[in-house]
Amino acid sequence: MALKDVVAGKRNEEGIASALAVLKQQLGDRLQTGQAFREQHGHTTTYLTLQAPDGVVFAESADDVKAVVKVCSQYRVPVIPFGTGSSLEGQVNAPSGGICIDFSRMNRIIEVNAEDLDVTVEPGVTREDLNVYLRDTGLFFPIDPGANASIGGMASTRASGTNAVRYGTMKDNVLAVTAVVANGEEIRTARRARKSSAGYDLTRLFVGAEGTLGVITSVTLRLQGIPEKIAGGVCTFDSIKAACDAVIMTIQMGVPVARIELLDEVQVRACNAYSGLNYAEKPTLFVEFHGTEETAALQSQQFAEIAAECGSIDFRWTSDAAERNKLWKARHDAYWASRALAPHLDGLSTDVCVPISRLADCVVETQLDIQENGFLAPIVGHAGDGNFHVLILFDGKDAESVAKTEAFVARLNRRAIAMDGTCTGEHGIGQGKMSFLAEEAGNALDVMRAIKMSLDPDNIFNPGKLFRLV
Amino acid sequence: MALKDVVAGKRNEEGIASALAVLKQQLGDRLQTGQAFREQHGHTTTYLTLQAPDGVVFAESADDVKAVVKVCSQYRVPVIPFGTGSSLEGQVNAPSGGICIDFSRMNRIIEVNAEDLDVTVEPGVTREDLNVYLRDTGLFFPIDPGANASIGGMASTRASGTNAVRYGTMKDNVLAVTAVVANGEEIRTARRARKSSAGYDLTRLFVGAEGTLGVITSVTLRLQGIPEKIAGGVCTFDSIKAACDAVIMTIQMGVPVARIELLDEVQVRACNAYSGLNYAEKPTLFVEFHGTEETAALQSQQFAEIAAECGSIDFRWTSDAAERNKLWKARHDAYWASRALAPHLDGLSTDVCVPISRLADCVVETQLDIQENGFLAPIVGHAGDGNFHVLILFDGKDAESVAKTEAFVARLNRRAIAMDGTCTGEHGIGQGKMSFLAEEAGNALDVMRAIKMSLDPDNIFNPGKLFRLV
Repeated sequence: MALKDVVAGKRNEEGIASALAVLKQQLGDRLQTGQAFREQHGHTTTYLTLQAPDGVVFAESADDVKAVVKVCSQYRVPVIPFGTGSSLEGQVNAPSGGICIDFSRMNRIIEVNAEDLDVTVEPGVTREDLNVYLRDTGLFFPIDPGANASIGGMASTRASGTNAVRYGTMKDNVLAVTAVVANGEEIRTARRARKSSAGYDLTRLFVGAEGTLGVITSVTLRLQGIPEKIAGGVCTFDSIKAACDAVIMTIQMGVPVARIELLDEVQVRACNAYSGLNYAEKPTLFVEFHGTEETAALQSQQFAEIAAECGSIDFRWTSDAAERNKLWKARHDAYWASRALAPHLDGLSTDVCVPISRLADCVVETQLDIQENGFLAPIVGHAGDGNFHVLILFDGKDAESVAKTEAFVARLNRRAIAMDGTCTGEHGIGQGKMSFLAEEAGNALDVMRAIKMSLDPDNIFNPGKLFRLV
Repeated sequence: MALKDVVAGKRNEEGIASALAVLKQQLGDRLQTGQAFREQHGHTTTYLTLQAPDGVVFAESADDVKAVVKVCSQYRVPVIPFGTGSSLEGQVNAPSGGICIDFSRMNRIIEVNAEDLDVTVEPGVTREDLNVYLRDTGLFFPIDPGANASIGGMASTRASGTNAVRYGTMKDNVLAVTAVVANGEEIRTARRARKSSAGYDLTRLFVGAEGTLGVITSVTLRLQGIPEKIAGGVCTFDSIKAACDAVIMTIQMGVPVARIELLDEVQVRACNAYSGLNYAEKPTLFVEFHGTEETAALQSQQFAEIAAECGSIDFRWTSDAAERNKLWKARHDAYWASRALAPHLDGLSTDVCVPISRLADCVVETQLDIQENGFLAPIVGHAGDGNFHVLILFDGKDAESVAKTEAFVARLNRRAIAMDGTCTGEHGIGQGKMSFLAEEAGNALDVMRAIKMSLDPDNIFNPGKLFRLV
């Protein structure tokens, strides 16, 4: 197929047939083409239409990845990496077909360097498996997007989650990756030193590229010491504004809070019902502090003072592990709790991120929008980062409901961008947010496109994501 | 001049003459071509030969930068950005001539967002000026490479320094930049949200690019609250190994040390003599803790216990500001103190960075190398990051001394790379470390080259730095 058609994202029937035939010979049963396998690998936690790949390779080594990339490069066929399929914006869909690389068998821990607080893993390792493996070392990997995502997927979407306010996002916690690039070679983006000023930051370029520049084959991560003491609590407020003020002041005062999560009244109601809790149905902050016995207590006290100053109604503090785990389990189940508010409806989870000074404005305006349009849509957010999620419950079979939901998402994204924020703090662009990335980036999108075309001239790596090339 | 010659870095006489003529018309006295101006702008704190540009533009706005880039792009003439000229690897040299853009007049603070802990500045603002400006806000910008460098230059070389162990490097503290790219347009790499997963991380691509992808016209930085309490101290050890063990354990235990600097016995001797101190001439750590009264004391106590366990001889703790300032003044003057050991000689300052578990090995092997070759070469390092500097005193007029020094630097760089470290933790590549970047990056250098050629097809942005294109 001609390059211009490939770049335009057209489906390359002939190339796909050839690639499948060659890969079947090279990889045998590691390539699967049955409909169930294919549909599983286009199916994500998403509101977008399923677009299945033509074949799924269960890669067992970087050599398998190289083989797929070489063949797909030769025949100009899309390559779509797949971790656990928990991405939310259609990142693993295959709009032009192609070969999905499933990383579930590349799930080895390659090397732990406890003294250096780093670990190198294959991309299919999930964050929960990694933390189970690390437990005896006294170290842990802090990034927690909720889902038990794969490390490769988390790197590719620049994931973050509840702990990011303290430990940063994948941008901050990936030391290096190896990746197979368009010529089929494997590159390594950096060494294990904690910092470097040696040339372009290729690590940060692959982190968040959503598989569009190459296929990650290993990830070296920074680790943290397991805190001696973890304490937490639940703090309620009469208004979103008061809760956000407490967040802003906590961040400004430099209190090293490990988690500070905002739930609006609708979200609290959903969590109460789903997780058997009895929190006041008011704007609420879930907080957590990591440190020694003394520092965790100090931080907690500092936070309580700040919250009181901002008009908190109640702060229930706990250092009891069981109670804390129940709280965070409820937070992690917020998605399912929200879905349970209306089990017959579909759910669309979207996220934006604004400078924290604008968080209250953005949430309050969004709540008004929800009310005015009669949506049921709980809000929960990583408030310390200015990042929040809205889960809109809608009827995916009703064209009007879909159109109304899409219009709401568009207003939300534009509201965030207008506040000097971003159309996604952690879900990524995928297929779902391409138009908002274009609005947000402006002419910087041309620079992104130029990079894409220079590193992937045949447009084989996860095409149809992030932006259109023509 | 033909593209292939430009890409090869040949001097484009005709193009330079035309660009100078057009720019003189457009910019008047803001363009200077006198020899003194030109030589000042090729002269850096470097051992490399001066290569002056053909003209210096004192830019006063982004429009001036756009004008220079447009003209230089039209005539295929190099554009070399210049902050304060404190870079160490020849970053501002002009090996093919061209136009230097001096940013000293673009030194405005554009916007402080105290609630969001961020500030946007023009690239010519120096870090000391920024901190003076910020003082009343209760915020500060923590990155401190020693020199009073410009923010644009610090972003371009991915600078770090003594505070990086706690606050990160420029990679972590730049939220966004605006930059003029090859087509003469200004792009903005990101918004002010604290995190984003919206497309490629162009911010991190421009940070550390050493001006080779475009010219930075503004930088948005993260700020920190000025700590309520700063305490510090000096801790001596009988061996480098013992001092490094204390560093490793401090990092592993998660003590949020703000600075932890290693000085070898030669460096302590130099500092004693230069700064009127009387520290024991033994491997020494300078440490600093930031926090509240309680947390700074707690951290200090934790560190003292760790140091004692690792065999420290003496820990002199202080929370007295005057004494602390004297200590850090001495640390910042380490370069001049070292030069004063042999005022008739030249000095070459080089840096490498290794995983911290290898720091003791790397420093000890380097000390042996220094002894075996009869160098006078103090070592001082940002030990918490595994980063250290060697200042080799040598005779720049003696070819044998130069050759011996270069061979030493090559061994040092290869030693660090062999330990899975990097050939530069914070000085950058410039001209001086191009061969070591090639060794370190391997085939990842092809990816860097591809990016460079896609964003700067005429090779106008700071050519002859980082890597050769052909």
